[in-house]
Amino acid sequence: MKKFTILFPLFLGGLFFAQSKTDSLQFKQISDQILTQGLAYNDLRELTKNIGHRLSGSKAYENATKWAYDKLKEAGADKVWYQDVMVPVWVRGKESLQIKTQNGSYKTLNMLSIGNTEGTSGKDLIGEIILVKSLEDLDKMNEADVKGKIVFFNYPFDQTFISTGSAYGDAGKYRQRSASVVAKKGGKAMIIRSLSSAFDDVPHTGTQTYDLKFPKIPAVAIGVKSADELERTLKTQKVYTKLNSNATMKADKLSHSVIGELTGQKDQSVVVVGGHLDSWDVGEGASDDGSGIVQSIEVLRTFKKLNISNQHTIRVVCFANEENGANGGKKYAEEAKRKDEKHLFAIESDSGGFTPRGFGLVMSEEKRDQIKSWAPLFFPFGIYDFTKKYAGTDVEPLEALGTPTGELVPDSARYFDIHHTAEDTFEKVNRRELLQGASAMTQLIYMIDKNW
Amino acid sequence: MKKFTILFPLFLGGLFFAQSKTDSLQFKQISDQILTQGLAYNDLRELTKNIGHRLSGSKAYENATKWAYDKLKEAGADKVWYQDVMVPVWVRGKESLQIKTQNGSYKTLNMLSIGNTEGTSGKDLIGEIILVKSLEDLDKMNEADVKGKIVFFNYPFDQTFISTGSAYGDAGKYRQRSASVVAKKGGKAMIIRSLSSAFDDVPHTGTQTYDLKFPKIPAVAIGVKSADELERTLKTQKVYTKLNSNATMKADKLSHSVIGELTGQKDQSVVVVGGHLDSWDVGEGASDDGSGIVQSIEVLRTFKKLNISNQHTIRVVCFANEENGANGGKKYAEEAKRKDEKHLFAIESDSGGFTPRGFGLVMSEEKRDQIKSWAPLFFPFGIYDFTKKYAGTDVEPLEALGTPTGELVPDSARYFDIHHTAEDTFEKVNRRELLQGASAMTQLIYMIDKNW
Repeated sequence: MKKFTILFPLFLGGLFFAQSKTDSLQFKQISDQILTQGLAYNDLRELTKNIGHRLSGSKAYENATKWAYDKLKEAGADKVWYQDVMVPVWVRGKESLQIKTQNGSYKTLNMLSIGNTEGTSGKDLIGEIILVKSLEDLDKMNEADVKGKIVFFNYPFDQTFISTGSAYGDAGKYRQRSASVVAKKGGKAMIIRSLSSAFDDVPHTGTQTYDLKFPKIPAVAIGVKSADELERTLKTQKVYTKLNSNATMKADKLSHSVIGELTGQKDQSVVVVGGHLDSWDVGEGASDDGSGIVQSIEVLRTFKKLNISNQHTIRVVCFANEENGANGGKKYAEEAKRKDEKHLFAIESDSGGFTPRGFGLVMSEEKRDQIKSWAPLFFPFGIYDFTKKYAGTDVEPLEALGTPTGELVPDSARYFDIHHTAEDTFEKVNRRELLQGASAMTQLIYMIDKNW
Repeated sequence: MKKFTILFPLFLGGLFFAQSKTDSLQFKQISDQILTQGLAYNDLRELTKNIGHRLSGSKAYENATKWAYDKLKEAGADKVWYQDVMVPVWVRGKESLQIKTQNGSYKTLNMLSIGNTEGTSGKDLIGEIILVKSLEDLDKMNEADVKGKIVFFNYPFDQTFISTGSAYGDAGKYRQRSASVVAKKGGKAMIIRSLSSAFDDVPHTGTQTYDLKFPKIPAVAIGVKSADELERTLKTQKVYTKLNSNATMKADKLSHSVIGELTGQKDQSVVVVGGHLDSWDVGEGASDDGSGIVQSIEVLRTFKKLNISNQHTIRVVCFANEENGANGGKKYAEEAKRKDEKHLFAIESDSGGFTPRGFGLVMSEEKRDQIKSWAPLFFPFGIYDFTKKYAGTDVEPLEALGTPTGELVPDSARYFDIHHTAEDTFEKVNRRELLQGASAMTQLIYMIDKNW
């Protein structure tokens, strides 16, 4: 076993090596082009600093669609268009959370209302906090013990997962669907520990979906430090809260995904690469998901710059409304179905612009094995992991049409430190890391366009 | 090829799987312990914030040795001691660089004298700058064209390397040995473009070694932005500089490496894990190399906490003087030879506390193959690259004694953005990334201790 390549004994045929030489030169050319001439980092600066955060339905989001349209044109797309998408319009408004012990005075906590929730209509909601360890514990409790209380879940982000996405998945239900479970027991509001891998006091927002059978109670997230301190205090004393929030959901509104493509030279079957253009209404949406947007545009730009002839149509989709509805992805798949467009593959980058390590893949074992057989081409670029079986939220709806899907898998260590927070800013993205992700996606799409 | 593990067909024997189950449980326990209870990040905060930068010969460095001694004791070392090392004492002092065009006025540039160089003894050195593209170009130039001039090398950091360490190696000669080449041609000072992967204006210091046959001329580094601007200006106008620096080398001084060990249960052959305790005299020496120090201490702490019985002596070495002399590593190997200590393996972490990807290994192919055979154990922790053939500067001298050596290979995207700069601070290190590196080294040392 003298060289690493001997770990891939299936590929020792001469044909493989001849093809692989062409491909490996192309891989290097793609990487060199992007690392030296790539504009994704500059694009991200524009999107985050000139436009900033851009929740669905906001003016900023509409500005972002115009920006994306122009960028796709500039990058050399043969065709750019808007795709109509109805989106929810959630407005945070002014909000505050104060807590006090029996004889203490109110102290303000850093907080964010969880997205898509209803606040207190600007009135003070006062009540006693009870600590509930888990949804299982809540399930066992008597209604009398929950009724009129504010339920506090302090479920920790499990640091033992190497993929922080798995820890996020594990803790996710506390943010995503638990308000209605609390309401069902008569609780009048919910506080959760933020879904955060960091040990700071930054609150993380995100979506909550109500079960319409129960009252839409307010639900807020506090930072990890505040959560730990609150739990400590609750062990010895009663704690009361004064919550005031104007958060509310308005009527849906017409918005748009932005799509640009390089028309296929051989046929018009489609390979999608995308990210989502919307973000939460705090920070700058730089890692989530400005990075995926600018990387996807870079893929198209690189095909043009290097004059790589694309057999199939390569389509960049800047999806609307991933964060609080995922309507952009759903609408895209609906339209693909309606127009009977053949989609060969669809990949999203929505795990941050960190150094890439591989691709999540949802497809037949045969197709996955084919992609794995390209591993020696990817290895010099730090791409080695083809084991993960998931795809980006916005491309998932295409799975119902039989489309193989995927997601760029960047290093996950830092993403959930800043995800859905005021800290998700341009400064947290590293130029080389971002560009390496764009390069990895371009290389994969080059291979798929050529071989599928 | 249904699963990734089929890529490792050599390990399909039953014995492997029985052993590998024990080992994979131990790997998981090590990772869980460090990711949930590890203290390396707190230790790094102490070292960087309470002590700060710590160049050889400084008071801060002596404080760091006391800190490391106490930390090793606290972590549970059976024995802790200081190893005498003579170190150079280079003092930067006040320094400034101004430039002007013929009719312009002086403008101050961000700069750092290159380490171990002699400045201008506090006098203004005034002269004309000439741009020289490369050492090869300088070699072809007439002495008359260089004499009395200030040579400016604007050699760029090659962004196309995936491993930024390779780009650093490529551009390194301009900082490391070129001042004397300039002096040989009669140049009276040298300015270089910083060895930086970033596109900012932060100057990077580092070591210069003079060829004693030629005058010790001043040598300074400027940031990338200033370098590009200076090159542009030089294309159309003459540029003059006023350089003033008090940098100077003093007499050598007695200092110390700090060593702590867990005595071997079976024999006293040694496995070394280390980093270097010194840093440059700017920033906080957080990535270079506070990270390696706290990770190495974490390895020892983890063996103690988990009651992993070590067959051989596991020795943490906090090497003195890596930055501007490498005397700590040399002295360590000398002493190992003098005492006839058998060293099984020595690894250093000195490429930053970024997410680990693999290990550089300098050893027989047989030993390398054995480590590669452990790849399936490492894969779930994101460790997959065993192809690199280099070792840390401080463990390299052990190679002459026949010791297999290595270096932790973290993701390299960000290291040379901040290396040897004022930006190398605690805030640039991520907790999880740092701890994952400590975990990877603990896992490797567990396997080597058990199998070698």
